[in-house]
Amino acid sequence: MKQKQVACSFGLVVGLWLGAFFARAARADEGMWLYSAPPRDAIKAKYGFTLTDAWLEHLMKSSVRFNSGGSGSFVSADGLVITNHHVGADDLQKLSDEKHNYLADGFYAATPADEKKCVDLELNVLQSTEDVTARVNAGVPSGATGEIAATARRKVMAEIEKESREKTGLRSDVVTLYQGGAYHLYRYKRYTDIRIVFAPEQQAAFFGGDPDNFEYPRYDLDICLLRVYENGQPAKIDHFLKWSKNGTKEGELTFVSGHPGGTDRQLTMAELSVLRDTEFPYIVNRLKRVEVLLKNWSDRSAENSRRAHENLFGVQNGRKALDGEQAGLYSPALMDAKAAQEKSFKAQLGERADGAEVRAAFDRIAEAAQAQAKIYKRYRLLEAGHAFLSDSFHTARVLLRAGDERPKPNGERLKEFGDARRESLELDLFSDKPIYADLEILKLGDAFTLFAENAGYDDPLVQQVLAGQSPRERAAALINGTKVRDVAFRRQLYDGGAGVVTAAKDPMIELARLVDAEARALRKQWEAADETNQQAHAIIEKAHFALEGLARAPDATFTLRLSYGPVKGYEEAGKKIPAYTTFAGLYERNAEQKNKEPFELPPRWLDKKSALKLDTPLDFVSTEDIIGGNSGSPVVNSAGEFVGIIFDGNLASLVLDLAYEDVHARALSVDSRGILEAMRKVYGVDALVNELLNGKR
Amino acid sequence: MKQKQVACSFGLVVGLWLGAFFARAARADEGMWLYSAPPRDAIKAKYGFTLTDAWLEHLMKSSVRFNSGGSGSFVSADGLVITNHHVGADDLQKLSDEKHNYLADGFYAATPADEKKCVDLELNVLQSTEDVTARVNAGVPSGATGEIAATARRKVMAEIEKESREKTGLRSDVVTLYQGGAYHLYRYKRYTDIRIVFAPEQQAAFFGGDPDNFEYPRYDLDICLLRVYENGQPAKIDHFLKWSKNGTKEGELTFVSGHPGGTDRQLTMAELSVLRDTEFPYIVNRLKRVEVLLKNWSDRSAENSRRAHENLFGVQNGRKALDGEQAGLYSPALMDAKAAQEKSFKAQLGERADGAEVRAAFDRIAEAAQAQAKIYKRYRLLEAGHAFLSDSFHTARVLLRAGDERPKPNGERLKEFGDARRESLELDLFSDKPIYADLEILKLGDAFTLFAENAGYDDPLVQQVLAGQSPRERAAALINGTKVRDVAFRRQLYDGGAGVVTAAKDPMIELARLVDAEARALRKQWEAADETNQQAHAIIEKAHFALEGLARAPDATFTLRLSYGPVKGYEEAGKKIPAYTTFAGLYERNAEQKNKEPFELPPRWLDKKSALKLDTPLDFVSTEDIIGGNSGSPVVNSAGEFVGIIFDGNLASLVLDLAYEDVHARALSVDSRGILEAMRKVYGVDALVNELLNGKR
Repeated sequence: MKQKQVACSFGLVVGLWLGAFFARAARADEGMWLYSAPPRDAIKAKYGFTLTDAWLEHLMKSSVRFNSGGSGSFVSADGLVITNHHVGADDLQKLSDEKHNYLADGFYAATPADEKKCVDLELNVLQSTEDVTARVNAGVPSGATGEIAATARRKVMAEIEKESREKTGLRSDVVTLYQGGAYHLYRYKRYTDIRIVFAPEQQAAFFGGDPDNFEYPRYDLDICLLRVYENGQPAKIDHFLKWSKNGTKEGELTFVSGHPGGTDRQLTMAELSVLRDTEFPYIVNRLKRVEVLLKNWSDRSAENSRRAHENLFGVQNGRKALDGEQAGLYSPALMDAKAAQEKSFKAQLGERADGAEVRAAFDRIAEAAQAQAKIYKRYRLLEAGHAFLSDSFHTARVLLRAGDERPKPNGERLKEFGDARRESLELDLFSDKPIYADLEILKLGDAFTLFAENAGYDDPLVQQVLAGQSPRERAAALINGTKVRDVAFRRQLYDGGAGVVTAAKDPMIELARLVDAEARALRKQWEAADETNQQAHAIIEKAHFALEGLARAPDATFTLRLSYGPVKGYEEAGKKIPAYTTFAGLYERNAEQKNKEPFELPPRWLDKKSALKLDTPLDFVSTEDIIGGNSGSPVVNSAGEFVGIIFDGNLASLVLDLAYEDVHARALSVDSRGILEAMRKVYGVDALVNELLNGKR
Repeated sequence: MKQKQVACSFGLVVGLWLGAFFARAARADEGMWLYSAPPRDAIKAKYGFTLTDAWLEHLMKSSVRFNSGGSGSFVSADGLVITNHHVGADDLQKLSDEKHNYLADGFYAATPADEKKCVDLELNVLQSTEDVTARVNAGVPSGATGEIAATARRKVMAEIEKESREKTGLRSDVVTLYQGGAYHLYRYKRYTDIRIVFAPEQQAAFFGGDPDNFEYPRYDLDICLLRVYENGQPAKIDHFLKWSKNGTKEGELTFVSGHPGGTDRQLTMAELSVLRDTEFPYIVNRLKRVEVLLKNWSDRSAENSRRAHENLFGVQNGRKALDGEQAGLYSPALMDAKAAQEKSFKAQLGERADGAEVRAAFDRIAEAAQAQAKIYKRYRLLEAGHAFLSDSFHTARVLLRAGDERPKPNGERLKEFGDARRESLELDLFSDKPIYADLEILKLGDAFTLFAENAGYDDPLVQQVLAGQSPRERAAALINGTKVRDVAFRRQLYDGGAGVVTAAKDPMIELARLVDAEARALRKQWEAADETNQQAHAIIEKAHFALEGLARAPDATFTLRLSYGPVKGYEEAGKKIPAYTTFAGLYERNAEQKNKEPFELPPRWLDKKSALKLDTPLDFVSTEDIIGGNSGSPVVNSAGEFVGIIFDGNLASLVLDLAYEDVHARALSVDSRGILEAMRKVYGVDALVNELLNGKR
């Protein structure tokens, strides 16, 4: 469960319970709350617990964002960070080669000198937030709409970010909240020297593989430990979480602090229709085609499988999540409830002074959504790069656009080239991660085919892109011909600027150039519609605030949020699903599946069975409101202690993208007790266990 | 490689060689030839071998069609038939249950009493063919086109079939050849009591699984032996193939006699454009989504995997084949060559009297193709049943339509309800094969989603089909509510007629009724366009005959054809690929892949290694022109002896659907010597080996 790769497999479960639920009025413990507006009263009223500022600040500063898409937390004063194995997997993959497969085989650094530096990982720790809504809106000329307003808004946001970056030295991002209802400035401490300390074998972390992904009961030790360095030394960390040896009891209140990637709960019915009728049919089927492509290639040899591994996992994970969200979009129970909410809100407006304006805002959103629907596929193909799927193309485009964008004034650049984001961009651009030409050709050839299928083979741009060759021939020629996989070449072009980029005549960069005019034009149209949409949502949200106060958390935006809820089992098809699983259950499932992939256990797990206290809790479920991006989020008790780590949601949770429920949807965590037990008895990493328990090395 | 599931994986190889080849004028050993017009002169000229009538009749009557989609041959006077394991797999699957998995574990009947009767298998053996073009065309009123002509043609074809069936007692099918250029009546002896005698474990038959499917070198013992019974006794067979102990030598001329399912070589460029731009983008992506659906469900448990196994294999096989054909459609080398051929043909027409008429025929084909493109998706969804993918829906529709069609005069019915086809229809309808409700719900739920994606959720028929439920809920309600999986119920409704069908109020039959009007209307439109198309193709083919004589074999139609060519290795990416593989190679590949799925070997293969003569040929390649449906075809030498059995084509062969080549494309066979060696040394089935060598029990 990672950012933008949200939610249940083909609605196997979804259909069965949605009916009963979504008609309810009460929202239970809904909400991925802003730290700046936590639901103090609701928690106090329901659980008798008072959120203090100190408690919040400590948890906020202990929470870590993985820019590769995930969450984590500090768990020692010496910079130790815990996240999910499937979040760290990206880094384990990049450090592996034909001879070392840290992803499959695990990793442990017995001494600091053995800790391995991640290739291009950036971690962010939120330090403060500030409401800049007024300044952002003031930057947009009164009455301006569409492209003009979008340009003005981007400019003022870039100014705010740059000013903050220069003043504080912190990474500074202006975040759009409530679909445009508010703009907040987020300031992060940024770490880029991150080293791997410990990872179990992937089979222990992701026991059950794709078939059991988003399922429960589960038995996954989905953890990975890294250490943050500054100036070549382990970073000294003031805010880290105390490890709980005792874990939780069923019914106990817990909190999740992490970075949910994105939700669609505040979309209007008109926007949801576009999602349902235009976006999902394209995007879900595209993921499935890429899955088949990578799976088939992986199965040809162990080395292919190693190379494509993280890519394939991401695709499968995304496919299952989107399948689940799609089931929600096709669920009358869910969608009728949402339609009723929208209708009731409009009715509430009644004779209010802003009623007409708000109703008109709904119409403008519908128009903007339709405008985006019209260009949706081509926008995805050309600007999101679906037609050119490969790391080589991505890099080539960054080089091309860097040449064009960097000479412009900060506020006029494409967002990702803003001064405040330069360091992160360069970290990515100059990454020395391995890129495999064979896998690149495979993906690019299929992407060209996708382009031809969707745009039509006779489309002039398709013909120019293919240049008289078949998709596969053309992909091979480009990947074998480009030099962008050479970091020194990239640096030379980036430093040299547009002239040097042009003079290089690199075939992949020339491909990026060929499609750039149309890609940029589509982006402009897209962002103009986004602007219209945000202006309209701002009007609607204002009415919401007026009518309901701060009753709703904003949709998720891969920024830090707080959720809460009890540890709690549930029922599925009349069967009681207990809140906790244990090591005993792991061995039972392994035996039932005859130790066959993806249910096999690493040899040491089979050897060490007798050493383990088998009734130790391994995973558990709770009702927190989470979504993809929350992977790796710490689960804490009311004392703020680390009691577990989010690693997934169950199938029923996959519609949380659209609406919250707590009857069947559950957040899945690894238990702090299970982690200790496995680290001690299976891995014998006692020094690390002591660091967790003592909070320092 | 089965019928309608033709051709290469993502064009991995395709791009590399097409360029060099398709410009050539010479057609080498192209052709899936009619037995009524074999290429005697070409074979005589090139190989010095004379095809005699007796030789041809013997091979024809030794060749067997599997109506489930495949080919085979008689190999003993006591009714023994050999085909591929992956052809017999359908029957092995139907005979298996939770306790017996004959597909995975293999099967051997030591005595006739142990031979297991297939649930619903029909075999056909061609006895004679007759050109009925004149009579078919005379049945269509002069000047009639579209629906009127289509109806008239269907009527006269049904009359011919019925008359032949009554006169000869043989199954009689009128076959459309040359896309409408000719109509031939095919008469078959029909067998329906078929019993399984021997099958190896699937891992021996399909070693390398989907990753190695359509690849070479290969090491598959892809065979299955069945016995044909009549009146409860093994059938006495006059024409069967003598088994060759000596196999072939590289360069030796061989023949393949089998039932290629379908090719598209004679389509015009206008038709190929529709194939490329409309049909493939839909159909390839649909297969990939079903593959992901079935694979994910299969991986959840061993029993799921067993239930979905054949279905998943068919989908993966079809996906790989269509990927390869699509690569051909996107290959300028191939398509430009075809365009040049069409241009040159039109130029050849020059000032001939029929020139204008032929050119107009091309235009009419283009119009008909466009007309079909317009309704393509909806036709597939509703009439081909993609929107209702499940055995239960298929059965429900047959029951509904049987009630409506059977009272009509023979010539006015939908083709499949014609008198001449009644027995085959009933064999299928009353089959007691296992149908699993859980798998049915899975498939139907996804099919409803596909329908909503393609037709739009707000489409009135989509809304009526879903009836206020989510796709998954609706699928569960229908599958759990219908009785059509009960054979006695089916019989009662079929015998009772429309009134009884209506009175049953079965929910699945009512779903079939709900969509029937539109499905039938789409079929009418589709067939009217087909008729226009066939009339126009008839004109073009007449000109072809006039200009070139019988230089071209007709496109494949799942009817008996003869191909020829030598056993021959080839080069791929500069690497020499030898013609033969051996048992030694099998064990090497197994070791290299660490005995891991899908490259693991059944235990007895590991045990018996030392007993085997490891240099015995196992598989080989030859240049015959084949396509999906040819699976199981006997390969014979010029003495008419069985030297091997076709089981696949290599990746490069997958564009044979569009055009023949023999530089890289190869037919893959199991060697008659390897079969004997494995049956003796690994399986110890000496009685059966003796039957093969003696030609009788």
